[in-house]
Amino acid sequence: MSSCVQNKEDEKEPVSVFSDPIDAKVAKLLTAMTIEEKIGQMTQITITALEEEGNPGVLDSIKLKEAIQKYKIGSILNVPNPGAPTPKRWNEILMRILDETNKTDKKIPIVYGIDAIHGASYTNGAVLFPQQIGLAATWDPELVEKCAVVSAYETRASSIPWVFSPDLDLPRSPVWSRMWESFGEDTYLSSQMGVAMVKGFQGEDIGSYNKVATCIKHFIGYGSTTTGKDRTPSLIPERILRQYDLPIFKKSIDAGAKSVMISSGEINGVPVHASKKMITTILKNELGFKGVVITDWDDIVFLHTRHKVASSMREAVKKAVLAGIDMSMVPYNYAFAEELLSLVNDGEVPMSRINDAVGRILRMKYELDLFRTAVTDPVDYPDFGSDSSIALSYIAASESITLLKNNEDILPLEKGKKILITGPTANSMKYLNGGWSYTWQGDQSDLYANDKLTILEAFKEKIGDKNVLYTPGVSISKEINIAKAVSLARQASYIILCLGEHNYTETPGDINDLTITKPQIKLALALAKLNKPVILVLNEGRPRIISEFEDKMDAVVQCYLSGNEGGRALVDIVYGTINPSGKLPYNYPRYVNSLEKYNRKSTENLGDDEQNDISGYQKSYFPQYEFGYGLSYTTFSYKNLILDKVFIERGHTINITVEVQNTGTRKGKEVVQLYLSDMYSSITPEVKRLQGFKKIELQPGEMKKVSFEIDIDDLKFVDEHNKWIAEFGEFEVNIGGLTKKFELEKVM
Amino acid sequence: MSSCVQNKEDEKEPVSVFSDPIDAKVAKLLTAMTIEEKIGQMTQITITALEEEGNPGVLDSIKLKEAIQKYKIGSILNVPNPGAPTPKRWNEILMRILDETNKTDKKIPIVYGIDAIHGASYTNGAVLFPQQIGLAATWDPELVEKCAVVSAYETRASSIPWVFSPDLDLPRSPVWSRMWESFGEDTYLSSQMGVAMVKGFQGEDIGSYNKVATCIKHFIGYGSTTTGKDRTPSLIPERILRQYDLPIFKKSIDAGAKSVMISSGEINGVPVHASKKMITTILKNELGFKGVVITDWDDIVFLHTRHKVASSMREAVKKAVLAGIDMSMVPYNYAFAEELLSLVNDGEVPMSRINDAVGRILRMKYELDLFRTAVTDPVDYPDFGSDSSIALSYIAASESITLLKNNEDILPLEKGKKILITGPTANSMKYLNGGWSYTWQGDQSDLYANDKLTILEAFKEKIGDKNVLYTPGVSISKEINIAKAVSLARQASYIILCLGEHNYTETPGDINDLTITKPQIKLALALAKLNKPVILVLNEGRPRIISEFEDKMDAVVQCYLSGNEGGRALVDIVYGTINPSGKLPYNYPRYVNSLEKYNRKSTENLGDDEQNDISGYQKSYFPQYEFGYGLSYTTFSYKNLILDKVFIERGHTINITVEVQNTGTRKGKEVVQLYLSDMYSSITPEVKRLQGFKKIELQPGEMKKVSFEIDIDDLKFVDEHNKWIAEFGEFEVNIGGLTKKFELEKVM
Repeated sequence: MSSCVQNKEDEKEPVSVFSDPIDAKVAKLLTAMTIEEKIGQMTQITITALEEEGNPGVLDSIKLKEAIQKYKIGSILNVPNPGAPTPKRWNEILMRILDETNKTDKKIPIVYGIDAIHGASYTNGAVLFPQQIGLAATWDPELVEKCAVVSAYETRASSIPWVFSPDLDLPRSPVWSRMWESFGEDTYLSSQMGVAMVKGFQGEDIGSYNKVATCIKHFIGYGSTTTGKDRTPSLIPERILRQYDLPIFKKSIDAGAKSVMISSGEINGVPVHASKKMITTILKNELGFKGVVITDWDDIVFLHTRHKVASSMREAVKKAVLAGIDMSMVPYNYAFAEELLSLVNDGEVPMSRINDAVGRILRMKYELDLFRTAVTDPVDYPDFGSDSSIALSYIAASESITLLKNNEDILPLEKGKKILITGPTANSMKYLNGGWSYTWQGDQSDLYANDKLTILEAFKEKIGDKNVLYTPGVSISKEINIAKAVSLARQASYIILCLGEHNYTETPGDINDLTITKPQIKLALALAKLNKPVILVLNEGRPRIISEFEDKMDAVVQCYLSGNEGGRALVDIVYGTINPSGKLPYNYPRYVNSLEKYNRKSTENLGDDEQNDISGYQKSYFPQYEFGYGLSYTTFSYKNLILDKVFIERGHTINITVEVQNTGTRKGKEVVQLYLSDMYSSITPEVKRLQGFKKIELQPGEMKKVSFEIDIDDLKFVDEHNKWIAEFGEFEVNIGGLTKKFELEKVM
Repeated sequence: MSSCVQNKEDEKEPVSVFSDPIDAKVAKLLTAMTIEEKIGQMTQITITALEEEGNPGVLDSIKLKEAIQKYKIGSILNVPNPGAPTPKRWNEILMRILDETNKTDKKIPIVYGIDAIHGASYTNGAVLFPQQIGLAATWDPELVEKCAVVSAYETRASSIPWVFSPDLDLPRSPVWSRMWESFGEDTYLSSQMGVAMVKGFQGEDIGSYNKVATCIKHFIGYGSTTTGKDRTPSLIPERILRQYDLPIFKKSIDAGAKSVMISSGEINGVPVHASKKMITTILKNELGFKGVVITDWDDIVFLHTRHKVASSMREAVKKAVLAGIDMSMVPYNYAFAEELLSLVNDGEVPMSRINDAVGRILRMKYELDLFRTAVTDPVDYPDFGSDSSIALSYIAASESITLLKNNEDILPLEKGKKILITGPTANSMKYLNGGWSYTWQGDQSDLYANDKLTILEAFKEKIGDKNVLYTPGVSISKEINIAKAVSLARQASYIILCLGEHNYTETPGDINDLTITKPQIKLALALAKLNKPVILVLNEGRPRIISEFEDKMDAVVQCYLSGNEGGRALVDIVYGTINPSGKLPYNYPRYVNSLEKYNRKSTENLGDDEQNDISGYQKSYFPQYEFGYGLSYTTFSYKNLILDKVFIERGHTINITVEVQNTGTRKGKEVVQLYLSDMYSSITPEVKRLQGFKKIELQPGEMKKVSFEIDIDDLKFVDEHNKWIAEFGEFEVNIGGLTKKFELEKVM
């Protein structure tokens, strides 16, 4: 068809071109916009850059006017100083911004974006949930979806329609400082959880008053740095990227995620922000992503200053926009906008690329209904911070906390006995919430969440002040008074030892040694000598090595970063009000240079027994606790694993059932986990991989039959030529230790 | 040209087809051989499989006959029990084998292969040199070539014509148990050293009485396992493989290396033994390798049993041979030969592949002149174990030992003072030689090298027994009597603390923590409290972390695994007879989870200063000692770095000169190191990379002008499409801290 004919048809029936009315609106607006207006839409500025000099938190009229009227920016992000406004204050800020945009020619609303990653975490009074790693440990996607529903509601209650969440990174080293922002080390679990969060945030219509647009991040390979340090290089062969990283994003894109944030890292020497292959070929074309692609903080500049793939800022902008970036999280100035304008005027960036980018941004704004409702009114959100939302956070924490050791059923504790609470994480909300809580590094949680209970306060509330002794003993990095802790411990029946990590995120969370800090080890070893039961409570974003004293602990409880209700949930688990049901979403390593994943290859078992014989050498694969592991106060038995066929071919589905019974005396929840093993394949098969799970509750004695389906897609892997294939041969299903084999018949 | 015409020409002038007479011989022999004879040639058996049951070390006539007459095997390897025969005994063994082959129809000689990796290390009485990591630390390729000349001589004196050396692996994790068998972490240094060894071993003609065929290993990516554990999976994107791993092999292949051993590992899910892409497409076709491709130990079987890419032994054999394997290091039985015969008979492996493989093997045998001289006579090798060869080993050790710290010029020591020698590595030849010494794990060095001096013995010889106190204090893995060491230390003026590692190689050397063992740390800390100077001597194959006590040591001397003369060389450095000149061939890490390479990307410096401010966090890149580092007892100053041009284009060469002066009072050697930095490039540039080095000797006050040449090939890197390219723009030369920039002009 010639362009002439097409034009003629356009004139005749203009509406027919756009089946979707939003498409038509976008096209119409695009046609009317100047190049400056378009480039403005692609520009995102941090709110702190618009504050008055020397007057943090107060918006500067001149700067605001410059941003919106002169540069016509399309988006603002981040939290104003000093952190976490109330919904009312957010409303005032957003109204101020709206007033300014209403003075522009096109009155295109700003889309405000925020790192609401475990609740509306930059809003004062919002319900803060467990961080993602804790949500993953619930192994309950429905529960995770409910949490995201509340997060969406409370974010919109803060007048903000766009969240930079969920995080779909696949951390390859547990050393990584953002391990806890992910759903852990498994592709299948992360995929399920990602979809749950996207659904919870977005619902059916992101234009609803209580829904927000998601931004899945960080596309792609961000969690895979070789050293584990943030924003350092990754080496990810394409086959590996396609098998393990891309599916997590694909699932959330198929579930309708509206925007994607690009990884700040490089893969195999190419920064993702400069990779047309990753952003345009794979993300936009191959995965069919139609939404907005946004950079991470300052990342276009970093192509020049850090990555050094661009010899000037101008070249950096050109590379990033041609790679497929739609919006730049600039965030401080207008160099991006000015360089891009010049590049377009000089013909170095085609208008088609600009129109594609701006079209995506405008579409999201229309879908969010910002042209009609750019700002919400807090009074319309009576459930902000409601008791039921708090209860949900408590449930999420309860379901996430993972019991890793319980020698001689020391837990649950008897209530009447005196306890010593000690350790650096026992009495601060910082260690329950971690980073991205009220402020970037989460260092103000005790101020903002001062009505919430720390672990110490929760114990006191539960068993009374008089039964609780407390001294920290050490801080994360320094000894305080270990002797005092030892002395108090002598007066107690039980020791609750709360260890873990500092609040942190991103580069400030980089470490050089995964071992838990020395003062904490010293405290643990000192207390372990007393012959009193020690309950180790971990508050940590990543699994810090504890093998130097783990064998001397009577119980180990992993809290992850369990949010504002984590203290209460922990105490209710310790005293048995709650029966724990969390399961590890990662391998908890035993040694610093032995960071194998659970779905390793069989060569990673080499010489286990043999090596233990040689003094000084250890097993090759020997995690402290394995992925999927977690104890209960009751016991479960598995029987009658049945596959309805032993041969499968294209189009077939195998129905798998197994009977699970609560064989203990307490009600409890069990995560029934289905693992698949490919016995032989052209790519070395994993020892096993998760291919299904269901969390069920059973009364004492109760038995449930749990069923799963496996089809040919579940048997596929990415071959040497980067294609997904299924190869005929034997497979093994493993559920709760029971195994059955089936065979994929030769695919014609 | 049609095949008809070609055949006709062949008939007319048969000799013209083979310009090389060996080709003609190979072709003629191949034509005469049966399929069984051909497959026999592809089969290599371990000598220990041919020993009498219950009578280790004695060859079993029936087994020998079966191997050679029935299965017509082409090769034997390994050392007979109980280890390291004398040259005379080797001669007897090889004669016995020759007698057996002479009973066969074709009388094709066996080619015997051996792991002579630091001298003829499986021959009793041979000169053992520093292991490869030590040779790399000499930064003197000429010296390394001389060592290989002696190794070749002594190996041929043992009647063995084929060495499985040099090792060209590029270890990506210093945790790897074979780090010390490599030339360290840099591609350029490893390439230079590899070529030097190939030249030294092979000379101009491997058929000479004093030369051997080399086997460069392990092609490819073997040193890159993710966890650092031996034979576990590697992830190496092709771009990285081409930029860093392949060039080391290419250089040695271009230098004429006669055989290649394949890596036991997998890359990106494909075991290299099953990879047609790696073996045939890249190694044989792209790199043009014409020699023999051999498996590593048992590796075809492992495709089935460990890697699980073959569902049967038959499939494993088919995969490996079709991938391009020419010879299988079987090593125990004839399943390989039987399966391959069946595969050929069934048409599953074409005869062309068999002929290619056998042709390569026969060619090497002809080149080695084995058809005429299959076995040598030790009496023809009067220089075996000669004083001059021993002196060469001493020089190599002296040049390799690296002075890493020398506070207040504590070294060299005054001779008249009493010293304490302590630590587990002070009094055994095992810790000087490491693995592959007399036996596989090197556990019998004290037996075989009982006439050689341990560190303790060398000190006693140097300064007299009465000046030397000794107690080990600890073993590698256990405390013995630290109190005794402390008590003896009080009587001494200096403490020589000898720490390090166990003898090991391959999987038994796997570790889970790079930190030096705890008893050794305890000993160091106990001695550090005495306020006496402590000289830390390291005998280790890989850089075990010492940061817990390094700051309390007055001097640190890295010996690596310095061979049989290492003790003497160390002592002569400690007392100043030798001025140390070794330089680290790797980054010596400070922290277990901070294993960055020196040629990192600039993103690996993120937040250095900022992070030091936050308690508990450390610098992102902060090795204990950096690649290329090493102190001298004199000082050197660099000036007048001059580039003869500041612009370069295709065909140009930049001549670079720099003046180096000995500004101290002692004669000394300096390694002048040239580093290049690409300021910006489409692949994130390394901070710097080694692109030249020269080791020079300077008298006190002497100045030498050192020159280098840089051409466009030196500026190239592998781009996103896996092609070597040079990009225009600025580069920086850095020699001895002086820098100058030049520019590559746009290449048309």
